[in-house]
Amino acid sequence: MSKRIENALSFSHELMQKCLQEGDVAVDATAGNGHDTVFLAKHVGQTGKVYSFDIQQQAVEATRERITRCEMAERVVVIHDGHEHMTSYVRVPVRGILFNLGYLPGGDKEIVTRPEKTLKAVRDGLQLLCPQGLMILVVYYGHPGGQEEKEALLCFLRKLDQKQYTVLMYHFVNQHNTPPFLIAIEKNQS
Amino acid sequence: MSKRIENALSFSHELMQKCLQEGDVAVDATAGNGHDTVFLAKHVGQTGKVYSFDIQQQAVEATRERITRCEMAERVVVIHDGHEHMTSYVRVPVRGILFNLGYLPGGDKEIVTRPEKTLKAVRDGLQLLCPQGLMILVVYYGHPGGQEEKEALLCFLRKLDQKQYTVLMYHFVNQHNTPPFLIAIEKNQS
Repeated sequence: MSKRIENALSFSHELMQKCLQEGDVAVDATAGNGHDTVFLAKHVGQTGKVYSFDIQQQAVEATRERITRCEMAERVVVIHDGHEHMTSYVRVPVRGILFNLGYLPGGDKEIVTRPEKTLKAVRDGLQLLCPQGLMILVVYYGHPGGQEEKEALLCFLRKLDQKQYTVLMYHFVNQHNTPPFLIAIEKNQS
Repeated sequence: MSKRIENALSFSHELMQKCLQEGDVAVDATAGNGHDTVFLAKHVGQTGKVYSFDIQQQAVEATRERITRCEMAERVVVIHDGHEHMTSYVRVPVRGILFNLGYLPGGDKEIVTRPEKTLKAVRDGLQLLCPQGLMILVVYYGHPGGQEEKEALLCFLRKLDQKQYTVLMYHFVNQHNTPPFLIAIEKNQS
């Protein structure tokens, strides 16, 4: 087990934490069990706002329950809809957007994100980002269709204009058990 | 220009800084202008030791001059020899090893590292690392032969036993000007 090198999930939090400030707007594109929503809500502070999306009723309820328990419900809008409809709900510039792609770890591996919806959501999300805003994707791809989603995503990202975006990939090259990898996209100051 | 996401060089320092402690032994495998040697020397402290290698006389002199000016000469051994002979000079467990591969930025692009020597040095260096020790390679590959060195290195790294080593790759996927990428290898606790 690696002690010095963070895994993709904890590195995603480290990067996002450095980016967010009190009063910011953030998006959790895949609410899941609500962990990331709480993390974002904590870092945008009392005057900030988090929009949290999930297509599954169960995830929406789990997230609502968790933010209520953490006394952060007022700064979070939980939306029962797919992240590909993000721009119908979010109309303001966003500092940080988090995605967990693939399946929900510990959840049902049959319920997975799909490349075409993922790409629409990523494309729309990039439009919402303010300059120096950060989109982070933690990608689980060890499931049927996971490799295809990974390829579709990388194919899209490689073509992003380097003047407009900096795209980092953070991944482990000698692991047989396909641990998640991280993509971080920063919108450059124009 | 990216503000939130560190480039390979500054991320290499961030990782190494978290790893090194007062009294540690570290290796600068490519002394160059001596910047990394000073960085390592600072972080191993007065009771630590840095072994610094370079095949070029000019680099050895520049490094000696720099460490003297920084009053760190006592904790540094500058060795005028290629890093592929590292194990002839270093006989103790090492906490951190830094490599800059390819050409020296700002220097002569004709003078580059070579895959076969690089691989020997990396292999030997991994043997010297103590558990939880870290080897970091910053790889410049935008020169003739650079792509081949990159491929040879990745081919070797992908085969490293995941029980023994965690191998991270940190790179930018949408840049046309081949910025350096980073490899971090941690020796796992057995």
